[in-house]
Amino acid sequence: MPLTPEQAAEIADARRTQHSTRRPTVPELEEILFEPLPVLDHGFVRVIDYMGDDSAVVQAARVSYGRGTRRLRDDSGLIRYLMRHRHTTPFEMCEIKYHVKLPIFVARQWIRHRTANVNEYSARYSVLDREFYLPAPEQLAAQSSQNRQGRGEILEGAEAARVLEILKGDAVRAFDHYDEMLNEDGRTASRDPARKGLARELARMNLPLSTYTQWYWKTDLHNLLNFLSLRADPHAQYEIRAYAEAMIDTVRRWVPVSYQAFRDYRLGGATLSAQALDVVRRRLRGESVTAEQSGMSGREWRELCTLLDAEAGSGEENAT
Amino acid sequence: MPLTPEQAAEIADARRTQHSTRRPTVPELEEILFEPLPVLDHGFVRVIDYMGDDSAVVQAARVSYGRGTRRLRDDSGLIRYLMRHRHTTPFEMCEIKYHVKLPIFVARQWIRHRTANVNEYSARYSVLDREFYLPAPEQLAAQSSQNRQGRGEILEGAEAARVLEILKGDAVRAFDHYDEMLNEDGRTASRDPARKGLARELARMNLPLSTYTQWYWKTDLHNLLNFLSLRADPHAQYEIRAYAEAMIDTVRRWVPVSYQAFRDYRLGGATLSAQALDVVRRRLRGESVTAEQSGMSGREWRELCTLLDAEAGSGEENAT
Amino acid sequence: MPLTPEQAAEIADARRTQHSTRRPTVPELEEILFEPLPVLDHGFVRVIDYMGDDSAVVQAARVSYGRGTRRLRDDSGLIRYLMRHRHTTPFEMCEIKYHVKLPIFVARQWIRHRTANVNEYSARYSVLDREFYLPAPEQLAAQSSQNRQGRGEILEGAEAARVLEILKGDAVRAFDHYDEMLNEDGRTASRDPARKGLARELARMNLPLSTYTQWYWKTDLHNLLNFLSLRADPHAQYEIRAYAEAMIDTVRRWVPVSYQAFRDYRLGGATLSAQALDVVRRRLRGESVTAEQSGMSGREWRELCTLLDAEAGSGEENAT
Amino acid sequence: MPLTPEQAAEIADARRTQHSTRRPTVPELEEILFEPLPVLDHGFVRVIDYMGDDSAVVQAARVSYGRGTRRLRDDSGLIRYLMRHRHTTPFEMCEIKYHVKLPIFVARQWIRHRTANVNEYSARYSVLDREFYLPAPEQLAAQSSQNRQGRGEILEGAEAARVLEILKGDAVRAFDHYDEMLNEDGRTASRDPARKGLARELARMNLPLSTYTQWYWKTDLHNLLNFLSLRADPHAQYEIRAYAEAMIDTVRRWVPVSYQAFRDYRLGGATLSAQALDVVRRRLRGESVTAEQSGMSGREWRELCTLLDAEAGSGEENAT
Repeated sequence: MPLTPEQAAEIADARRTQHSTRRPTVPELEEILFEPLPVLDHGFVRVIDYMGDDSAVVQAARVSYGRGTRRLRDDSGLIRYLMRHRHTTPFEMCEIKYHVKLPIFVARQWIRHRTANVNEYSARYSVLDREFYLPAPEQLAAQSSQNRQGRGEILEGAEAARVLEILKGDAVRAFDHYDEMLNEDGRTASRDPARKGLARELARMNLPLSTYTQWYWKTDLHNLLNFLSLRADPHAQYEIRAYAEAMIDTVRRWVPVSYQAFRDYRLGGATLSAQALDVVRRRLRGESVTAEQSGMSGREWRELCTLLDAEAGSGEENAT
Repeated sequence: MPLTPEQAAEIADARRTQHSTRRPTVPELEEILFEPLPVLDHGFVRVIDYMGDDSAVVQAARVSYGRGTRRLRDDSGLIRYLMRHRHTTPFEMCEIKYHVKLPIFVARQWIRHRTANVNEYSARYSVLDREFYLPAPEQLAAQSSQNRQGRGEILEGAEAARVLEILKGDAVRAFDHYDEMLNEDGRTASRDPARKGLARELARMNLPLSTYTQWYWKTDLHNLLNFLSLRADPHAQYEIRAYAEAMIDTVRRWVPVSYQAFRDYRLGGATLSAQALDVVRRRLRGESVTAEQSGMSGREWRELCTLLDAEAGSGEENAT
Repeated sequence: MPLTPEQAAEIADARRTQHSTRRPTVPELEEILFEPLPVLDHGFVRVIDYMGDDSAVVQAARVSYGRGTRRLRDDSGLIRYLMRHRHTTPFEMCEIKYHVKLPIFVARQWIRHRTANVNEYSARYSVLDREFYLPAPEQLAAQSSQNRQGRGEILEGAEAARVLEILKGDAVRAFDHYDEMLNEDGRTASRDPARKGLARELARMNLPLSTYTQWYWKTDLHNLLNFLSLRADPHAQYEIRAYAEAMIDTVRRWVPVSYQAFRDYRLGGATLSAQALDVVRRRLRGESVTAEQSGMSGREWRELCTLLDAEAGSGEENAT
Repeated sequence: MPLTPEQAAEIADARRTQHSTRRPTVPELEEILFEPLPVLDHGFVRVIDYMGDDSAVVQAARVSYGRGTRRLRDDSGLIRYLMRHRHTTPFEMCEIKYHVKLPIFVARQWIRHRTANVNEYSARYSVLDREFYLPAPEQLAAQSSQNRQGRGEILEGAEAARVLEILKGDAVRAFDHYDEMLNEDGRTASRDPARKGLARELARMNLPLSTYTQWYWKTDLHNLLNFLSLRADPHAQYEIRAYAEAMIDTVRRWVPVSYQAFRDYRLGGATLSAQALDVVRRRLRGESVTAEQSGMSGREWRELCTLLDAEAGSGEENAT
């Protein structure tokens, strides 16, 4: 994430400027406003702007004339009630905008969240920076043997070295060839005046999915929390999870009460099916329930046992 | 739009508070922040919060590290280019939130704009204020004889008086009965302790569509301009147009360059069909074109003549 | 829901026509296609069209070239897996379209679901039918004393009679006045040629929120299930719940496997917070946990006890 | 676009099956249902399912009980009126679903259209086919000198040959390395049992943006026409335009009346700004107007002259 001196100066400039406003303002978020929070080897997340705070959620839920807040405890209770009962619309009243630098294969997962506004750097119009993602050694993992969609053991020794050699070598060559095909001034030491150069919109197709792109991305708090609960989940690919985790920290600064409710009711919670609820109720009444009696598939049963605690799960097995 | 003293005090309070922020700030919009702008007889529009300004459009279009602005003239040229070519996504990077008080039949037209966030006052949870819309005399119009969807001549004398008598009488009675059915303390002089009172969610069904409701409504600049171009249009019902016009003035304060581009390319512009373009081209080459030769329906032809100027239209008829 | 003879004939006509198609077709849904399913006193829901079936969910999840289905058991397992893990996008691949007749106050709750397509009968363009909702006696309930948003005891005797008298009397008068103000042929026995008549878009504001309107409403299966889980919930107002229940039955006919998964994982399931999960885990390990030790608010604690079974809840209290 | 024998058999199977349905059915679209329409070197578009036809637009606009159609001429007039006046919601009542195979850099432009449902082939879960896009010689163009976002002259001779050599060589090497890193059975002649193989979600980052992916993509007619008017535009990149053109032909088969209205009012039409309208009006009245008098920027003026016809434009210059 090496900024050019010009970029660093632009950011410093923006951070120095202070305005006076009547709008709700969150000092803890202002503190990091515009600053690049590093993610992966060359990426970042920057908070560019925001609208509203915890009290904006309360204000909209109450459709009030002023800030709508009462005692801190009442406001917090209302926000937790809204989160618990999935009354989601008041959380849409807060908005945040990020500038993100991220590998294209991460961008392709990210863009699936449709309720957001996006402006991406155009590789038809401009030339892409020579930056690509190379996993850290501890991220070079084999395909999981249990989960068709995840990672298993870490690669080591010669195998790891060979993978890095391939990833790096192919990316470097692709960028060299990108520059050669573009044949533009300022990109290569030796522009060949005899060649026309290939159109940017075509030349970029040679670049790997590990190439970094950037975008402005803006969404409301409700949709942001949805994004985060899916992308900070252990089942999400590590690379997008790294972004989600950096962003969760910006939510904590921005709307601390909503953030805590989100942790309690979404990130830390779990949904039980009708069958799972029945198992829990019966076990709480002292019955023992086997997988067969539960009416659940083997996979669901194992998921439930894991959720309710490994000990409880194995205790159950002893009991049956 | 008579605010209660409590409401007025809440608003005055909010307006007195000033914060320091690094965010883009628009003094001309701050000036009217939180203030109710009157619309119709009891309605209002209040700007509650906003995010971004003209330079945020430029910044997103350029995916820049700082404010992204250059010379004023370049920025303005870029914004006008984006508006002209319907590159709409950079305009989504600005967001605004209103508090609106409006008759229910207007709210029902308004809510059709789906790309927005809404929190409405709940008539299941709370009791509605005793306020309903009564048209001003100059708005009491007959059904249009030309347009199945519009108004024609103004009603006068006894007919107008009778309409107002009905509208007012029925609304007053409906609210009296609403209070009687609710049978709640503080609403009627004489709560009857022998009666249970009807649930709020049921009692409200007796109220007329002219009853005022309120909501918080938040959207981005692109979708706001869409809303305004449809609802400030002469074909829109007068009552929602009154809201659109009050809001257009808030856009002028907020993003003056985008506003001017919107006036030039959207409000003041027009779309020509392939056939209409052909007519214009032929007439500019000196040909005269009749309705029959145009390949257009009679209605389209008249619309085109009106657009190109009544004189031009009649001149054309002389020429053929 | 009395159809005019013309309407009944149009529906019978549509039902008689059979076409040959290569598209996935669901005989159990075809059976009721176009037929009005009665809801409330004058309302209905009609399935007008649909796209896809259970196998379309499977096909999209597998991005397959043909129908994408394998053994019935595999397909069913996949659908249940998708529902359980909230992989919602494959359910968006099925689409359904309804024609609905409903009171305006119900329409106002319904329209809050934004991810849908809607065309409503226009009261600017056309005259509304003389139909309004009058609750059945067993629906005339007092405001709940526990839930600020719900109903409590049923009204009886003179109080119930008086409420019905008001609701009916005010609606009849409003429609009489609507007709008088419109002063159109065919609506009133005695059009007065001396009067111009009020524009339709204005006259309708006098009608009560209990007036019936109609619309075409189209959405995908994922968003339909969201709608149903919120609107078939016991906390939803009875009147919209009546529609949701009629529609749930159309889902059962249309996509029986997805329907069963929806019952098991959504309608019959429950979400536990981090604190609630902790309580369950501790109790399953044999600990007793009090409300105080749980870290939950009083309200949350009671909700959890109710969920885990009244007996379990009271047993717990004995234990502490 | 070489289908495997299994894929071809699945498609043939689906095409052979005929069902009886009460739903509106469009024989001309049924004819090509499920068939891959070739696009670029390995891509295709297949219509998988559809809901509604031209009469469904009419039916929703009229909120009718039956098909809602009257005389063909009335229906066509209504559809053209709706298109002309941008009454877009009735067009949302038709839905279509495609299976598309397309290069990733095209998919990244396509996905920006958010009002659609998508299920993409997962490169976390599955291994990607060894297919990448290689432009035909007549598509190998230089960067445009006029348009920063477009193509100019065609490359020739040695330069063209070198570009193709690079694009092909880098892609082949990337796929070879992809297989080597995956080290899975069935992909390479020689799986190395001593190596673990890299997780699929990581290995894919080495592939170029020219790699083909596939998805199911479903949208309504209104949003489809929006997509097509932007992506079939001469300013769109050739590769996505090729898809748009194949899809326009499916629209012609599906909803011929809406299609013709789309051609007349959208594809073949043009939007004039307030200033441009003023220029046209003045010229039609016989005035001559210079660029300076028009109040337009040089670029807008040139766009207008081009639109109104090159001769007219130059004629104007003579006149001043």
